[in-house]
Amino acid sequence: MNSYTEYLTLNVPHRMEFVNITPQVNVALLNSHIREGLCLVNAMHITASVFINDDESGLHADYKHWLEKLAPFDASAETYAHHRTGEDNADAHMKRQIMGREVVVAVTRGKLDLGPWEQIFYGEFDGKRPKRVLIKIIGE
Amino acid sequence: MNSYTEYLTLNVPHRMEFVNITPQVNVALLNSHIREGLCLVNAMHITASVFINDDESGLHADYKHWLEKLAPFDASAETYAHHRTGEDNADAHMKRQIMGREVVVAVTRGKLDLGPWEQIFYGEFDGKRPKRVLIKIIGE
Amino acid sequence: MNSYTEYLTLNVPHRMEFVNITPQVNVALLNSHIREGLCLVNAMHITASVFINDDESGLHADYKHWLEKLAPFDASAETYAHHRTGEDNADAHMKRQIMGREVVVAVTRGKLDLGPWEQIFYGEFDGKRPKRVLIKIIGE
Repeated sequence: MNSYTEYLTLNVPHRMEFVNITPQVNVALLNSHIREGLCLVNAMHITASVFINDDESGLHADYKHWLEKLAPFDASAETYAHHRTGEDNADAHMKRQIMGREVVVAVTRGKLDLGPWEQIFYGEFDGKRPKRVLIKIIGE
Repeated sequence: MNSYTEYLTLNVPHRMEFVNITPQVNVALLNSHIREGLCLVNAMHITASVFINDDESGLHADYKHWLEKLAPFDASAETYAHHRTGEDNADAHMKRQIMGREVVVAVTRGKLDLGPWEQIFYGEFDGKRPKRVLIKIIGE
Repeated sequence: MNSYTEYLTLNVPHRMEFVNITPQVNVALLNSHIREGLCLVNAMHITASVFINDDESGLHADYKHWLEKLAPFDASAETYAHHRTGEDNADAHMKRQIMGREVVVAVTRGKLDLGPWEQIFYGEFDGKRPKRVLIKIIGE
């Protein structure tokens, strides 16, 4: 069994944004020389996500609107107890749970075994700072 | 390390439906001859899910009602920007994020290491067309 | 390839509670002698979660309040069809879908490759009874 580890750093200039990181994961897979196995991609920060969905800007706008409705930003400590610590990002911790922390993608014949529209995204919910994404590939 | 790959095709006659695919995953595991490892099962389409929960029809009805409330179907392009592309399934992309894309199940002594009520489901949110599910098993 | 399997049993005295199980997962990893690989941690029960987030009591209070709003407890069979079976925990099945069933964590140089604030939690949504969590580690 072989394994390969890589860390990406993303610095998103907005509070909430989605970044297609499929190209970076493809490069990591090439570097790994693994042809059959599993590829884990996860956010290393707890107000960010890695998820798989469509690369369509209208859908991304819909996701933002929807997540804001389900878990609204509100800096007050009356609304969110987490803010008594000085933070203002409780909403980001919730948005991240809906969108998920990680994806596991099959590696088949040296390629990410993705469906026709599947693209891997980094989801930022409390941006304007550098955050890391972990890529771990194991297999043969 | 050994690996095994299989693709299921599901064609669900309703827009939203849940299908128990545990039997198919068990057959794939038998075919793989893997006794210790990990089994990834994921939807290859971005308006569908693979998730683990109870095989109880009342609960499934509750899930449908609940998901419709959290992410209502609405074909208009005023409600969902994604529909400017001609699609009408933005709600399905949201429902899928709540229910998840994939499950990873432990393989122990040649069996899926599931709890007493755990069953693997395909969750369809924009059906009436064929879609694929990927089963990838690695181990020894 | 090596593999290691361990089962934790948790008996949470409240209906909804979050328990930091990172120490137990670290011990399992030490016992496995695996230095590079993947570590799956999943709830084996369908009204419980394993998720990764912050160990901050205010945030946990916010999560409980938020989950109760998105999927309210209501024992009646008029609200949830699942309750016609005699159960009263349909809300717990929903809360678990939002928080997720499992996490997959990279193992790098013999350690869980977690970000600075990442902690692994067991999320109970229908407690006051013993439930199991599975830890499966594969690698070398």
